[in-house]
Order: sequence, then structure tokens, then C-alpha cells
Amino acid sequence: MNDMRQMTSLGRAIEEASFAIVDAEAGDHSFSPAEWQVVRRVIHATADFEFKSLLRFQGDAIGSGIAALERGCPIVVDVKMIEVGLNAHRLAAYGCHTHCFISDDDVMREAKMAQETRAVMAMRKANDLGLLRGAIVAVGNAPTALLEIARVVREQSEAPALIVGVPVGFVSAAEAKDAITKLDTAAIVSLGRKGGSTIAVAVIHALLKLSAEKP
Amino acid sequence: MNDMRQMTSLGRAIEEASFAIVDAEAGDHSFSPAEWQVVRRVIHATADFEFKSLLRFQGDAIGSGIAALERGCPIVVDVKMIEVGLNAHRLAAYGCHTHCFISDDDVMREAKMAQETRAVMAMRKANDLGLLRGAIVAVGNAPTALLEIARVVREQSEAPALIVGVPVGFVSAAEAKDAITKLDTAAIVSLGRKGGSTIAVAVIHALLKLSAEKP
Repeated sequence: MNDMRQMTSLGRAIEEASFAIVDAEAGDHSFSPAEWQVVRRVIHATADFEFKSLLRFQGDAIGSGIAALERGCPIVVDVKMIEVGLNAHRLAAYGCHTHCFISDDDVMREAKMAQETRAVMAMRKANDLGLLRGAIVAVGNAPTALLEIARVVREQSEAPALIVGVPVGFVSAAEAKDAITKLDTAAIVSLGRKGGSTIAVAVIHALLKLSAEKP
Repeated sequence: MNDMRQMTSLGRAIEEASFAIVDAEAGDHSFSPAEWQVVRRVIHATADFEFKSLLRFQGDAIGSGIAALERGCPIVVDVKMIEVGLNAHRLAAYGCHTHCFISDDDVMREAKMAQETRAVMAMRKANDLGLLRGAIVAVGNAPTALLEIARVVREQSEAPALIVGVPVGFVSAAEAKDAITKLDTAAIVSLGRKGGSTIAVAVIHALLKLSAEKP
């Protein structure tokens, strides 16, 4: 629904009216104009203004994310809902491909053998394939996937261009995001428990829009 | 991630610990035990306890939804994120198929011609194909899709077995859900602006689990 070329005029009018309501109700904030484009799209996707106080931008998150997209970076995601929620046409125009390994047979088999979550083994597979360096890594569901990314960055210096760390959860989600905030890597995280695949999609769509609207 | 057969033991342990936290923090409520399985799974998927006061069960929502699944009903959804978030293995075991028409070429073409949203035309296509009667219809994204479903039920008595009306949005979302609450159809809605595809997935997964655990 976020591909402007695929939206009908009515769909576009609804989206514009929605963003106007978000802006009007959000009140004051200290985000940069570019950061606000990300925050307002997350609020638009959730109707939850709490994200205004939960979202954190680390390093040159916006600049690094946009530059990675424009290089046609890999986009490594933890769950298929992010993959299918992302605008395939827009990403293809940048030469970006999405990678989601969580349902791969080898990942499922190795997770059982290693007594790990599938999400962890899926991120290990991405690392083994050399996909993490310079990538946008988006985690919307599995805190363990984000903890694994933090470990890889710490131990191997395989730095993604941008980590979108927005897993939702009651166990380890807040800790996983804290682990990301201790890295030097550019990142956008939602502190605490809240997050989700729709939030990850909103963040990346905001970056695509910022890239498209660059002067 | 919700297919127990596909979850690792660690994944299962995390899920169980998460639900225990939800139960402990949620406090008192007046939901039936079966309804609570739905509400707690939505809270688990969002970390947002406000859904405890937003979710409404209309008619015999749980019973009607479970019976429809066990009949192998069509599952008509507004966006692909719901389709891909649903556990395909579990649904296949019931003989259920998902239907999502929003990206179909004819839907996109006709939406532009009719000056309607793609979501509306997608629901019209489902209706034209006779898929709505006895179906579970799940709307997580597009209020206009839910308004169209309400219109079809009012005007054609094409009653779905269950409407999962949880679109998120600032324009028309609350109104669309109100329109559903005026019908006699069994429904689960999230009042107000909040909702989303992850909420729709959580509701249907809760119904699948309730069916699997029936005595």
C-alpha cells in the first residue's frame, strides 16, 4: 500500500489525511525532520503515539540507511511478514533484495540440533553467506535474532549499514535492543517491549520515501 | 513462528514465559477463558495492554470462528502480511485457504477506474467469487475494506462466519469498526484506531490453538 505508483488517488488522499492527524496530535518533539518522517510513519502504522518516546536513532541512522538502499544493499529480515510487507517494486528499483531464512529446512534442522531458536540460526546463515556487511538488518519479531546480530557485530566486526531493531516481546526484547545501543553501528530501535514487523516495514518505507524525495 | 511443530524447544519456552508475563500483568478482566486466549495473544503480539480494553467479541465469535476453521472455510484477508503471517501448515491441515486480492492486476485497474481503494475492490472481488459466505474475513490494514464488508453484509446478507475487524488507522478505522458492531454477524474487533496485520494474525492463531486444544 506504500508504493505511490500503485496507490489510487483515494488511497493517497487517505494517507495524507492520516499523516496530517499524526502531525497535529503528536505535539512537540526533538527529532530532526528526517527522523520525524520515520517516527510519524511508525505512528501511522500502529496508531500508537508511545513510539514517539520509544524510538531511538543511533549514529547516522538515516543517512547510512538511505545510502545503503541507494547502493542496492541486501535487506536481511527475521520474518516473512516484513519481507512481504516491504514494497517489492520500490526495492527492486534500487537493486535491493530481501533475505529471510527462518523457514529454511537447514535453519529449522540446525536450530533443533543446536537447541537454539530458528531466528538465531537464520541470522547465522545470513552471516555465513556474507550478507550482513553493509546490509540493512531488520528484526521485528524475534529478540533472539537481534541478540545474535549484536554478537556478530561485537565479535566479527561484520557491521551492517543499519540495524532496524524493533522486535516485540516480553522476554529479551528490551535486553536485545539495549545490546544494540551499546554498539557503534547505525541503528533505529524501539526501546522496551514494543515493536513488530509492521514497525520494521514502516521504518524502511520511510527511508525509501526520504531517498525518493531528496533534493 | 506459531506452529508448535515448527518451534524449537527454546522458542516454545520463550513463548510460554511471555504468556505468563502477560497473564500476570494484565490483572482482572471479564473475558471468558476462550476470549482471553485471543486477547492475551494480541497483547503478546504487540506488548500493548490497551488491547485488553479495545477488543470486542460479538455474537458467538469464538465458537463461530472455530467451527468455520474446522469446516475448512475460506480466509479472506486484506493484505499479504496477514496471509504470510498465518501458519500455512496449520491452515492446510484444516483445509483452509487464504485469499488476498489487493495486488491483483484487475483489482488495481478497476480501483483506478472506479476511484475506489484497492482494498475495497479486493473485497468486491472476494464477494463476486462467492468467497464471503461462511468465511473468516480478516482486515488488518484497510478501513475501507472493512466498510465494504459491512456494506455487503447489510445489502446482500452474505454473512461471513466471523469478521476479524482490526484495521489500524486515523481515517475511517474507528468508523469501520463501529459499522461492524451494528451487524448481527459474529465478529472480533479492536475499537478505535489501533489494530494491524499482526493483530489479525494473532486472533486467527488463537482460534487455531483453541480448536487444537478442545477437549
